[in-house]
Amino acid sequence: MNVFSHPEFDNHEQVSFFCDPKTGLKAIVAVHNSSRGPALGGCRMYPYATDEEALRDVLRLSRGMTYKSALANLDLGGGKSVIIGDPRKHKTEELMEAMGRFLETLGGSYIAAEDSGTSVADLKIMGRQTSNVAGVSARKGFDGNPSNGDPSPATAYGTFVGLKAAVKHKLGRTDLTGLKVAVQGIGNVGYRLARHLHEAGAKLWVYDIHQDQMDRAVEEFGATPVSAEEILTLPVDVVAPCALGAVLNDQSIPKLKATVVAGAANNQLEHPHHDEALMKRGILYTPDFVINAGGIIDVFHERTDHDADKVRAHVESIGETLEEIFTRSDRDGRPTGAIANELAEERFQHIPAQKDQHPESLAKAG
Amino acid sequence: MNVFSHPEFDNHEQVSFFCDPKTGLKAIVAVHNSSRGPALGGCRMYPYATDEEALRDVLRLSRGMTYKSALANLDLGGGKSVIIGDPRKHKTEELMEAMGRFLETLGGSYIAAEDSGTSVADLKIMGRQTSNVAGVSARKGFDGNPSNGDPSPATAYGTFVGLKAAVKHKLGRTDLTGLKVAVQGIGNVGYRLARHLHEAGAKLWVYDIHQDQMDRAVEEFGATPVSAEEILTLPVDVVAPCALGAVLNDQSIPKLKATVVAGAANNQLEHPHHDEALMKRGILYTPDFVINAGGIIDVFHERTDHDADKVRAHVESIGETLEEIFTRSDRDGRPTGAIANELAEERFQHIPAQKDQHPESLAKAG
Repeated sequence: MNVFSHPEFDNHEQVSFFCDPKTGLKAIVAVHNSSRGPALGGCRMYPYATDEEALRDVLRLSRGMTYKSALANLDLGGGKSVIIGDPRKHKTEELMEAMGRFLETLGGSYIAAEDSGTSVADLKIMGRQTSNVAGVSARKGFDGNPSNGDPSPATAYGTFVGLKAAVKHKLGRTDLTGLKVAVQGIGNVGYRLARHLHEAGAKLWVYDIHQDQMDRAVEEFGATPVSAEEILTLPVDVVAPCALGAVLNDQSIPKLKATVVAGAANNQLEHPHHDEALMKRGILYTPDFVINAGGIIDVFHERTDHDADKVRAHVESIGETLEEIFTRSDRDGRPTGAIANELAEERFQHIPAQKDQHPESLAKAG
Repeated sequence: MNVFSHPEFDNHEQVSFFCDPKTGLKAIVAVHNSSRGPALGGCRMYPYATDEEALRDVLRLSRGMTYKSALANLDLGGGKSVIIGDPRKHKTEELMEAMGRFLETLGGSYIAAEDSGTSVADLKIMGRQTSNVAGVSARKGFDGNPSNGDPSPATAYGTFVGLKAAVKHKLGRTDLTGLKVAVQGIGNVGYRLARHLHEAGAKLWVYDIHQDQMDRAVEEFGATPVSAEEILTLPVDVVAPCALGAVLNDQSIPKLKATVVAGAANNQLEHPHHDEALMKRGILYTPDFVINAGGIIDVFHERTDHDADKVRAHVESIGETLEEIFTRSDRDGRPTGAIANELAEERFQHIPAQKDQHPESLAKAG
C-alpha cells in the first residue's frame, strides 16, 4: 500500500511513522487537517496484525477528529495516533517515554490524548518528554466535581444535551418525564447518560455485555434489563447506542421502533448512506461525531482556560449545533449525517488566511 | 509497500509524508538516526513515477547521511527529504513555502539543505516559514572568499585532502608533482578539485558530458581531454569519480589501471561488495561518503560558529579519518567500504545516554 494514494488518505497533511528498536515502539501519527489549530486526538494502542491495518485505522480516525472538532467549534485540527502492540503485553514505561520523545519532534502539530489501550497514566509518562499531551491534569470538572482528566463525564453530558435537542425537534417535547429510552451499553459514558436521563424522569431499558453493569443500572435507575437482540428494537421513543460501532445497518434499521437515535458510540452508521435509510423510515438520526464531542471540548479547555463554566456552556452548545443540522436537514430533505459533514467542511475548509499556519509557526517564522 | 517492513527501512526513527493540495506539494521526510544530533540532509525535488520510488530514494539517502555525518565527527544525525515533482514544471514559491511550513512542524528534528532539484533560493523561500533550513547564509567561506552558502568549494577541498591521504598511504608520496590523475566529471566539485590538483603540480586527464567544461579544464589546467570510455581505464595513478554513481562495477573494475580511487561522486560502488573487488585487484578505494563530507561539514559550521578556520581544520580531518580506515583495512585484510561503515556505526550507535534526546527536547521536557 502507498500512503499518498491510500483509499483513506483524503489529503492528510501529515502521516508520520516512528520506530524505536530499543523499546520496540512502532507508531503512526496522522494529522488530517490543522487549519483550525493543532491536531488533537487519541493515542490508541492495539495489536494490529499489519502496518496496513494500523495505517487504515489511524487515517480514518484522524479524519473523523477534524470533523468532530470543527463541529464543536474548537480551535483544533484533527489527528490521531496508533501504537502497534498489545497493551497488555508490550506496554512499558520505556515505550511510552519513547512515544513522548517522538511526539516532541512533531513540534506541537499533534497533541495526544488517552484512547483505547492507553490510560491517563500512560499519557503522563509520555508527558515527561513532551508537553504535547492532553487530558492529564487533575482539575475541577465541568460539573464542579474533582476530575482526574477523564473526559467521559463531559461526553455523557453532551450526549444528554444532544438527546434532548433531538427529542425536542422530533417529538416536540422538552420535559423528559416518562420518555422511553433504550440505552445500549452502560459503561463509562452510557452509565452517566443513563443517570442524567433517570434524574430527568425518563424510563430506561438497558443492555450491556457485563451483567454487573446492568445490575447497577437496574438498582440505581430502576431500568429494565433486556437482551442484546431486544435493545434496539423496543417500542421506545429514543434509542441511545453507547457501545459498539456499526449498529445502524441493513439488518437493524428496518426493525427500529424508536423515532429518535441519539447516543455516544463512535461510527454508529455501518456505511455513510445509512443516515438516508433512517431518514426514509422517519427516524431522526443524531450524528455521532456531533453529539459525542463533549470529551474533546473538555480536553480542549484543559489546555486553555481551565474554566468549568466555560466548558459546561461549550458542551451545551452541542444542542444548538444539532438544531442547526436538523433544521437544514428538514429544509433540504437530506439526511442529517450528510448535512453534518458539509457543515464541518464549511468550518475547516474556509479559514481566514492567518489561521492557515500554527501560531507557533508564525511566531518562529516572524 | 509498507513503511516499517520496507527493505530499506533499517530502523528509521521517523518517516513523514506531507501533502498540501493547495500547492500540489507531496513530500517525504526521513530521519534515519538522531543519536548524534538533529538530522541534516538535502531536500531533493524529482519527478518520481510512484510514491514507492520516492520512499525508496529518501530512505537510502537518509541512511547514508547518518553514516556520512558520523564519520565527519559532526553532532548531526542523518536525514533527507524528497519533493515529488518536476523542478522545471512544478516548482512554485507557494510550494516551497508549504514545504517550509511542514519542516516547521517537525520541530527541528530534520534540517533541510539544497540538493538535486532545489537551490539556495528555494531553501531561502522555505526559510520564511522555518528556521530548519541550512546552507542559506551568505558568509565568508572556509577559504576566506565570500560564499553564498554553496558547499561545493568545501566538498572539493575535502576531496583533495582525502585524495592526498590515499596517495600517501598507497603510493608513499606526499608531493603531488607529476602525479597522474583522471577526473571524471568537472562540474561544480570536479572543476574545483582539478584546480587544487593542478596547483599542486598534478598532471590531469578529464572527461565531462559538457564540452565547454572540458575546454575550460584544458585551457586553465593544461588537462588532456579524453572520451567517456577512456577516462576510467587510463594508465594513471589516481581515478577521481566526480559525476555519476555506480561507476565502480563488474564491467569497470577489471579495466582500471590506477591503484587509487578517490573522488567526490556519491554511491560510486554499484553494489556494496564492489569494495572487495577493488581490494582484490590491489586498488585502494576511498569510501565516497568519507571523502565527500566537506559540504556537510561546511553547512554544519554555518549553523554553529561561522568560523572559517574551524571549517578548514574540520574539513582537513577527513584525511585523518581516512588514514584510520586505510590502516584498519590493512590490519584486518578487509575492504575499506566495510571498515568505514563499521566505524560510522561505532560512532552513532554508542552514544552516551544524555545524547539520546535532542537538546530541544530536553529543554522543553525539563
